[in-house]
Amino acid sequence: MSGTKEHIIEVASHLVHLRGFNHTSIGEILQESGVGKGNFYYYFRSKEELGYAIIENNLRRFSEEVTEKAFRGNRDALAQLYDFLNILVEIHRQRHCVGGCRLGNMAMEMSDIHEKFRKRFQEVFDSWEAQIADLVRTAQMSGQLTSHADPAVLAQFVIASIEGAILLAKVKKDVRALECCVEELKKYIRIYVDSNIVLYA
Amino acid sequence: MSGTKEHIIEVASHLVHLRGFNHTSIGEILQESGVGKGNFYYYFRSKEELGYAIIENNLRRFSEEVTEKAFRGNRDALAQLYDFLNILVEIHRQRHCVGGCRLGNMAMEMSDIHEKFRKRFQEVFDSWEAQIADLVRTAQMSGQLTSHADPAVLAQFVIASIEGAILLAKVKKDVRALECCVEELKKYIRIYVDSNIVLYA
Repeated sequence: MSGTKEHIIEVASHLVHLRGFNHTSIGEILQESGVGKGNFYYYFRSKEELGYAIIENNLRRFSEEVTEKAFRGNRDALAQLYDFLNILVEIHRQRHCVGGCRLGNMAMEMSDIHEKFRKRFQEVFDSWEAQIADLVRTAQMSGQLTSHADPAVLAQFVIASIEGAILLAKVKKDVRALECCVEELKKYIRIYVDSNIVLYA
Repeated sequence: MSGTKEHIIEVASHLVHLRGFNHTSIGEILQESGVGKGNFYYYFRSKEELGYAIIENNLRRFSEEVTEKAFRGNRDALAQLYDFLNILVEIHRQRHCVGGCRLGNMAMEMSDIHEKFRKRFQEVFDSWEAQIADLVRTAQMSGQLTSHADPAVLAQFVIASIEGAILLAKVKKDVRALECCVEELKKYIRIYVDSNIVLYA
């Protein structure tokens, strides 16, 4: 990828993270990036096309900063799952809870007004859930988690809770909201550690 | 309140719910409501002032549709908490998961770009949490929940998880995501029903 194209995507991702996709104009992206209009349209036919590039950029960044760090196969599966949660807390602590989840924000903003974006966000959430469900299965095979856990259900609940907790921390500008929820989420996961515990909804 | 003012707020709340606050122009609100520009500015000095009215309208509606129905003092506290969750599932099922949480959406969109809105959203979330924490305390006094539960922490986790689950259901356009998370949330709550269960994060 050209340096200029990459630069536009980085600047646009940053602006959209803080202000939202619809509230960030191409004019602002040009001004902030120092790229000319003709140059912009050489790389992107439309703001929509830039939108897809922003989604992929955010996904790549999330993989580098979170999942690739947490999900390394040389440690036990439960430790990897806890690392995933702990890394997210650290990221939002360092950001002073500004911005929230790049992909969650844009998914919330766009899912009812751009069906193709919505489908891509659904794939993104599904892929996160699949990665966590895989961890749960590994933990079950090694005896770390009991067979009472439904991998897909547990994974979905982890993703939902962490998205909501990141939102709360953003609204309260207080990382303790996220920390607290992660502690509760770990307690929830421990339901499936002790085979003597069987809870029904 | 005048009928016209109420009408403007209702139309604006609806548009903002689907499209976001920044992506909804006063022009669109005038067109959709059939109200003239002069009439609009008679009631609202600015879009910002309308924004506050939308927040209060959404809060009132949430109270009428959810909390006032769920939190009626004549039933046991745990049943009220479960009702709160069940009512939310039903609302999003009926809406076919379109729109998501009115207040959660706007909080996510605006918390980093409008500090006074953010403060109001923080108060809204705090008030929901306080209502649930009160229920937890009542449940503890009646012996329905154990003393292991921290009312504020449990309440915050419930709000975070349900917000995230509503977002997932909106992105997937599938109420089962919300249903599933509510079932897991009920299992989590049940950690605090049996005093023999003590889980650590």
